Amino acid sequence: MPHFLSTADADFEDRFAALLTMKREDSPDVDAAVADIIADVRARGDAAVIELTSKFDRLDLAPETLAFGRDEWEAEIAKVPDDEREALELAAERIRAYHARQMPENEQWKGPHGETLGWRWGPVSAAGLYVPGGLASYPSSVLMNAIPAQVAGVERLVVTAPTPDGKANPLVLLAAKLAGVETVYRVGGAQAIAALAYGTETIAPVDKITGPGNAFVAAAKRRVFGRVGIDMIAGPSEILVIADRGNDPDWVALDLLSQAEHDESAQSILITTDHKFGLAVAGAVDERLERLERGAIAGASWRDFGAIITVRNLGEAAALADQIAPEHLELCVDDPEALAANISHAGAMFLGKWTPEAIGDYIGGPNHVLPTARSARFSSGLSVMDFLKRTTMAKMTPGALKAIGPAAETLARSESLQAHGLSVRARLDQLNE
Amino acid sequence: MPHFLSTADADFEDRFAALLTMKREDSPDVDAAVADIIADVRARGDAAVIELTSKFDRLDLAPETLAFGRDEWEAEIAKVPDDEREALELAAERIRAYHARQMPENEQWKGPHGETLGWRWGPVSAAGLYVPGGLASYPSSVLMNAIPAQVAGVERLVVTAPTPDGKANPLVLLAAKLAGVETVYRVGGAQAIAALAYGTETIAPVDKITGPGNAFVAAAKRRVFGRVGIDMIAGPSEILVIADRGNDPDWVALDLLSQAEHDESAQSILITTDHKFGLAVAGAVDERLERLERGAIAGASWRDFGAIITVRNLGEAAALADQIAPEHLELCVDDPEALAANISHAGAMFLGKWTPEAIGDYIGGPNHVLPTARSARFSSGLSVMDFLKRTTMAKMTPGALKAIGPAAETLARSESLQAHGLSVRARLDQLNE
Repeated sequence: MPHFLSTADADFEDRFAALLTMKREDSPDVDAAVADIIADVRARGDAAVIELTSKFDRLDLAPETLAFGRDEWEAEIAKVPDDEREALELAAERIRAYHARQMPENEQWKGPHGETLGWRWGPVSAAGLYVPGGLASYPSSVLMNAIPAQVAGVERLVVTAPTPDGKANPLVLLAAKLAGVETVYRVGGAQAIAALAYGTETIAPVDKITGPGNAFVAAAKRRVFGRVGIDMIAGPSEILVIADRGNDPDWVALDLLSQAEHDESAQSILITTDHKFGLAVAGAVDERLERLERGAIAGASWRDFGAIITVRNLGEAAALADQIAPEHLELCVDDPEALAANISHAGAMFLGKWTPEAIGDYIGGPNHVLPTARSARFSSGLSVMDFLKRTTMAKMTPGALKAIGPAAETLARSESLQAHGLSVRARLDQLNE
Repeated sequence: MPHFLSTADADFEDRFAALLTMKREDSPDVDAAVADIIADVRARGDAAVIELTSKFDRLDLAPETLAFGRDEWEAEIAKVPDDEREALELAAERIRAYHARQMPENEQWKGPHGETLGWRWGPVSAAGLYVPGGLASYPSSVLMNAIPAQVAGVERLVVTAPTPDGKANPLVLLAAKLAGVETVYRVGGAQAIAALAYGTETIAPVDKITGPGNAFVAAAKRRVFGRVGIDMIAGPSEILVIADRGNDPDWVALDLLSQAEHDESAQSILITTDHKFGLAVAGAVDERLERLERGAIAGASWRDFGAIITVRNLGEAAALADQIAPEHLELCVDDPEALAANISHAGAMFLGKWTPEAIGDYIGGPNHVLPTARSARFSSGLSVMDFLKRTTMAKMTPGALKAIGPAAETLARSESLQAHGLSVRARLDQLNE
């Protein structure tokens, strides 16, 4: 049974607040262990990486086998069935087309005194993408991380992916190839993040690290942040569906379950204007859960964190959605555009009943790396921008310096930064000679 | 004496690498103390903030005096001399004009099967700007942090600024007013960051925190990251000047000193194609140091971290600049545009000898909050984008779902995410009925 709430209930505010602040993740504190691993990789390089890979992944490597050779890589890719290859190619094409539109323009203009102002964008030189091993080794995530980097123009793009017991995921290797990845290292965990950030004899350091991972990977990314750029630290998946009675309860149930099946800590919430519809969805969820492959995981998520909230109208739904600031937001209502216009905070919106969230996970085009845990209030999904940086440009003329230099001098004096003021004054003095 | 290097020297690579990896900051480890302060503010709210302000700033406040009253605020502002007010107004106007050009556009288009794709930008709802107290209380930084937020459309913009012994900085309060700040809290340190992130009875929480601060503030920002958005954790200031012999050594000396005077840990580097010119600049620095108000600070920075590097040509200079990835880069050469085109990594570029870096600190228009410690390799200066977030949008039609849904199903199956596939299949089944 999920949590049932209604805005008409007297205790609604408290129960809704409890839902929002529910601690969903039980992250073990692995920070000390991660600090040791990073120090070890910094000190011993390849030797540490190889030793840790032997220990954690039961795989014995040498410096020359840390990366997949081109032949091995191709041999793995050859195992991918045709339908999966074609689906992945279509996904790559659509994701690339969407992200290509994100490339920003350089700007340059003249200020009022003839000075030139503007900025210029450029890619980071090298990026490393972390791909988890085991069950969470998703080829779709490889595309979602690597294609924006490729579109941005990143010159050197590498992947680290653990291969426990030497077992690789052929689809992950195909996705890496489709997205222009240069090298795939069979290394995982904090040791992979340390190698990407600091480099080893074999693994050259990168400037930016992205991609999901377990608690060790997350802690390591947090630690190397500043030395290199990182993407967000993602929490468990979330979906909010706003649906009126004009929907098939089974469709909505499946949409809710498609997040719940990710993780016992995932959270699926339905907001509906029709209490009976909500009950029908709850029934459909239970029915589907009985036969779902990952029913145990999805069931635990739905029981502990799932919720069905009945509201009086879509205005209430929009206000609650902004408080939830969901990672994924499905709007299964007659006029989804009108509802979307009233909601400010969401990572990704899926408009209308023909847009199940799963389309966005794979093939829609938008990125599926999205802000979780209410961080859509202040952050965005992964994009081309994450692999670009901006250099601002300014060029004064003597006339411009005469016009605005004295104000800079005044402000420098007010901040007691004398040399700042003198650097302007020395030039003004020559102009006034 | 700064470090003298030449690319013609046999040991150049080693000495240059040492220069790059020099540990310039001796940040005390205040993390445990900061964790306690944050926990205290979360637990006791206003009471903790008031107690800590009394302890650290020797200032006794009550909940109703945590913020400046409108009258007090105006009374402080009235103390600002006319020339300083006018200079600050001109700076605000120019910074606003520059940042207004950064506002990105929403995008929406049709995909190949009639589906609608796009994204939408929106501001964070509330932002908090930290302003340090004491010597580093810079009104220019208030403008540089608050104006991008204002331009982005942030609804609630607040400042926290410690006022040790109750002493406020009138120019900071004027800058806050000019930049549309709603409330200024006289609170500093980790307690201010905790209050902004978690809220107290009096201080409503914000979604994004920016602004410079001491080790306590930096550690607190790092800790609340994820709960709220933060800007970068800034390190000591840096400037790289590339200058040929056609420059006045005294101008270049002052430009180098304008960073060195910030902080004993600041780093000023000159790269020149003319060894004699480098010696002349070194002489001019020494001469200026004798009379500079902050000569002790600037002198220590120049002695410990300053460098003059002689190169054979501007191609070498460009390559070294990319390795340094400086916060500020001055190009004092005949064709600065051509040189700029060869350099990828820098926070801000200042082109030509009439553009001293100090212009950019105050009045040029570009932001002066810039990536330090080589992070210009992967990050950008503060901008309007830091106060916006993007929501991606997708709307399928039945036809689009028929066209691309099967590929999503295939990929879901390959990732063992059955409910994902079923959420697409249930809809396709109805279309095929």
